[in-house]
Amino acid sequence: MTTSTTRTTRGKGRDKAAPARPTQKDIALAAGVSQAAVSLVLNKAETPSVPPATRTRILEVAEGLGYRPNHLARMLRSARTMTFACVIPDITNPFYPGLVRGLQTVAAPAGYDVLIFDTDGRPEREARAIDWLLQGRADGVVATFFHLRVPQLAVLARKGIPLVRLESQHKPDGPLAIDSVYIDNAEAAAAMTRLLIARGHRRIAMIQAEFGPSQRRAQGYSAVMREAGLAPDFVTDSAYSEESGARAMTRLLQRKGERPTAVFGASDVLALGAMEAARNAGLSIPGDIAIAGFDDIPVAKLLGLTTVRQPEFDLGALAAETLVRRLQPGGFGSPGKSHELKFEIMKRSSV
Amino acid sequence: MTTSTTRTTRGKGRDKAAPARPTQKDIALAAGVSQAAVSLVLNKAETPSVPPATRTRILEVAEGLGYRPNHLARMLRSARTMTFACVIPDITNPFYPGLVRGLQTVAAPAGYDVLIFDTDGRPEREARAIDWLLQGRADGVVATFFHLRVPQLAVLARKGIPLVRLESQHKPDGPLAIDSVYIDNAEAAAAMTRLLIARGHRRIAMIQAEFGPSQRRAQGYSAVMREAGLAPDFVTDSAYSEESGARAMTRLLQRKGERPTAVFGASDVLALGAMEAARNAGLSIPGDIAIAGFDDIPVAKLLGLTTVRQPEFDLGALAAETLVRRLQPGGFGSPGKSHELKFEIMKRSSV
Repeated sequence: MTTSTTRTTRGKGRDKAAPARPTQKDIALAAGVSQAAVSLVLNKAETPSVPPATRTRILEVAEGLGYRPNHLARMLRSARTMTFACVIPDITNPFYPGLVRGLQTVAAPAGYDVLIFDTDGRPEREARAIDWLLQGRADGVVATFFHLRVPQLAVLARKGIPLVRLESQHKPDGPLAIDSVYIDNAEAAAAMTRLLIARGHRRIAMIQAEFGPSQRRAQGYSAVMREAGLAPDFVTDSAYSEESGARAMTRLLQRKGERPTAVFGASDVLALGAMEAARNAGLSIPGDIAIAGFDDIPVAKLLGLTTVRQPEFDLGALAAETLVRRLQPGGFGSPGKSHELKFEIMKRSSV
Repeated sequence: MTTSTTRTTRGKGRDKAAPARPTQKDIALAAGVSQAAVSLVLNKAETPSVPPATRTRILEVAEGLGYRPNHLARMLRSARTMTFACVIPDITNPFYPGLVRGLQTVAAPAGYDVLIFDTDGRPEREARAIDWLLQGRADGVVATFFHLRVPQLAVLARKGIPLVRLESQHKPDGPLAIDSVYIDNAEAAAAMTRLLIARGHRRIAMIQAEFGPSQRRAQGYSAVMREAGLAPDFVTDSAYSEESGARAMTRLLQRKGERPTAVFGASDVLALGAMEAARNAGLSIPGDIAIAGFDDIPVAKLLGLTTVRQPEFDLGALAAETLVRRLQPGGFGSPGKSHELKFEIMKRSSV
């Protein structure tokens, strides 16, 4: 395991200064309650079996005695931060919180906290994330970068910070500790396009974003359209946002000539914006226009949006497992791998 | 300005070792492009005027020369982390990303990155967030704690780390650098309850969560129900989640006797879960049952959910402004203040 000199030095300095730590037993004695109650209150969010006054008392005593969970002691011993960073382009896109939750679910029992860094999909903020990581703020990283590529990211692996990228396609094995998790975005978009064609649509437009996975999704859509003898029809707006989706749909509806009968948003938030713009224009979905998305964000089900399910929770969990393995002794020895998970087409009422 | 010894020492150590930093002009010369193009590529997410190959070249040259934005130099000079932490109970609740975005919008131009720490609303994770902060990982904190109270949080202010809490009511001035931002949650819930009564509802149930702002919202609802001679009717499930909302609604629908004609979710995600459970039970909204929420998350508009708008973006921005002021020279001198913002009742089709 490679660690930067700074981190090792800091860890050692702190270890010497660490005071004697109270145990849960000490807290139980001081609060005059059972050790089982202390364990419950300190480890569970919900403790219906412990009266609220007892819970408060236990927390106050724990605080008074300076109780800290094992986590901190473990961190001090190992000279690690016991932190994973999750670098995402847009925290307001409901796809990413699911990814973070998957990551946390594996990271927490392994003793790692998860910190989230939102880049807003901007190159300057992605560079800041790298700066911040190079200061030794996290032991490993799960990231979606829209702009930085392996040449710019290699510095992390060289500093002993493993990276798992959320990708839109298979990546060849590499010499560095840069792994990836993905669903086949092109094949998933192709499958959705085939569904739209099977439902009788011929004029199918795709709403794209400027960066990120949109490109691979567009390739899958284009390939199927051409195979079917149909003309791909793209509207590109800047971001993966409802505003971009609504703007793109408005442009589609204002065009002269025949209107598309189906619109495929390169992400669910784009599709949601398109739905809103279509309804505002007095169109019914799917009667006047069918709308499909990509991601299967939590609200897609409630809105009846036909979409591609990305298993975001599982992608996050797999990424965390990969980091945990990389951080075990000898974990840096193996080449960077690309791990595929399966997508699913969710057929709902919008198509 | 108070900083911990560790942080000051680290800053100084790094400052000495800092190499000469390339400027954007150096990069322009090395890449054979204009300085304007370099500035665009390094500062903007979208650069339609710069050909993709040129953009890639600029980023590669910048990386090769070891370019870092001014941010890092600034951080090294000041012995600060130039980071704000945002501690939230649930990243999958669409209310919080808006808060984070407001925070970022003020933090970024002031030179601060924002890191997000998700506690899952659990006391153990809240304690971890405090541990992490006490290691000097952030200069200031915006937080929603469900369990920790001022006695446990005071340690931050004493270490020179200002804290702004997202609260559900006015807090009295305090001696420490612990401020708060809030809307009057009780009054907002009272206003929503009055609307439901004005629409003719008499049997109005409220779906609550176990911790957090739900309690103040319940107080506002109870007060208005009693004033109107009606019996408050609570169903409590554990968390602010769709699952909890759906479970609570299912319990309501399985009860013997007359069913409520309106259900007020203590948050929008609870209301969304309730909507789904009601529809799965074959009920129409608002025909068979009216549903109201609290928060006005982005998707509420698309779903036609009547709800209380919390200005989450403005709350985040105000919290960030408060931190920036606290971190200016002398900023620790003034007492902790509570800042109120206004709520709004959003009348849509679900009521």
